[in-house]
Amino acid sequence: MSKGRFITLEGGEGAGKSTLARALAERLERAGFPPRITREPGGSVKAEAIRELILSGRVRSYGAFAEALMFSAARIDHIDSLIRPALERGEWVICDRFIDSTRVYQGVLGQVDAKLLGELEAVTIAGLMPELTLILDLDPEIGLARAARRRKPDEAVDRFEGETLAFHRKLRQAYLDIARAEPRRCAVLDATLPAEGLAEAAWRILRARLPIDAES
Amino acid sequence: MSKGRFITLEGGEGAGKSTLARALAERLERAGFPPRITREPGGSVKAEAIRELILSGRVRSYGAFAEALMFSAARIDHIDSLIRPALERGEWVICDRFIDSTRVYQGVLGQVDAKLLGELEAVTIAGLMPELTLILDLDPEIGLARAARRRKPDEAVDRFEGETLAFHRKLRQAYLDIARAEPRRCAVLDATLPAEGLAEAAWRILRARLPIDAES
Repeated sequence: MSKGRFITLEGGEGAGKSTLARALAERLERAGFPPRITREPGGSVKAEAIRELILSGRVRSYGAFAEALMFSAARIDHIDSLIRPALERGEWVICDRFIDSTRVYQGVLGQVDAKLLGELEAVTIAGLMPELTLILDLDPEIGLARAARRRKPDEAVDRFEGETLAFHRKLRQAYLDIARAEPRRCAVLDATLPAEGLAEAAWRILRARLPIDAES
Repeated sequence: MSKGRFITLEGGEGAGKSTLARALAERLERAGFPPRITREPGGSVKAEAIRELILSGRVRSYGAFAEALMFSAARIDHIDSLIRPALERGEWVICDRFIDSTRVYQGVLGQVDAKLLGELEAVTIAGLMPELTLILDLDPEIGLARAARRRKPDEAVDRFEGETLAFHRKLRQAYLDIARAEPRRCAVLDATLPAEGLAEAAWRILRARLPIDAES
């Protein structure tokens, strides 16, 4: 029986993760492997409810470790109820944000102890490491301008969009550090490329790292 | 198709929860409904790993809300991977500690905001409320003496066993308050009864509240 493949997309605001997810899904579908696209925080009924609780802002006052625990609780449900069953059925799964977002936002930027966060990650994913993580790298000034253009006139500024440029530079660097530390899992993409070019570059990496076996 | 029943056991240290779980399981088995006995924190592979992380003491310094989140993360996996599937197969589930332990230990004793804890509970169980919760009520002086007798000579004192008598009295009262607030779900049992008498009393309540339908 074939086993599904697990791909995650990471990067800052406005880098084009959801557009890329759809573009990769189209290509995989044409190749005969229609994938499941999902996202974090959220992705399952219970995880979406936890997302609401996080976004309500009531957890934030308890600090970054409490946030990391919330995201982990949501991730556990997301894995148990959606990701792992899909992979066991042989489906491909593309997830918009996963463990690296927790490492970067709560770990590096929220200054949660890296060792404790690592232990939490280990019990949360229980071995379900993504096989490929595409990191969309972008100058934060460009990313924030994109996110602002995308925002509807009556929409509030997202809490991370409201952070300083220094915050977003640190975020970018944290992602690049992960890519450098785990080159077999991660690949960095230049997110200033036009959408089609970015999709093409991502697709080439995907084909090279996760060969699509027509027999599987 | 028959649907399983979900029973939880609650109470302080040394009240006899695990002995009662086994006694009820024997009776249910004789009645043709061999139940699944489980416990919290833990009960599933991932939840047991989180239990280890909690017991390591590294989370404790982050406060009672962080602990509540850890227990909730473990509970989500326990529900997703064991409790709900068993109930859907029509099995009975007896769980040693569940939501009321979080309400009492982290809520009342840890002073986590009750409203926030309630929201967390709601997203964690997503409607899976126990149908019957048996609260084993015991004078804490008796309970602590029992727990001490049960402890092996080289075993360390459990962190809750090490708390003051005032702590354990508050814990007892918090359980009684839950029973008073939710009389349809909860029943209080006198845990000073000998094991056999306690099992008989619990069995009578169980039969009265959750009639065993021979046709189901």
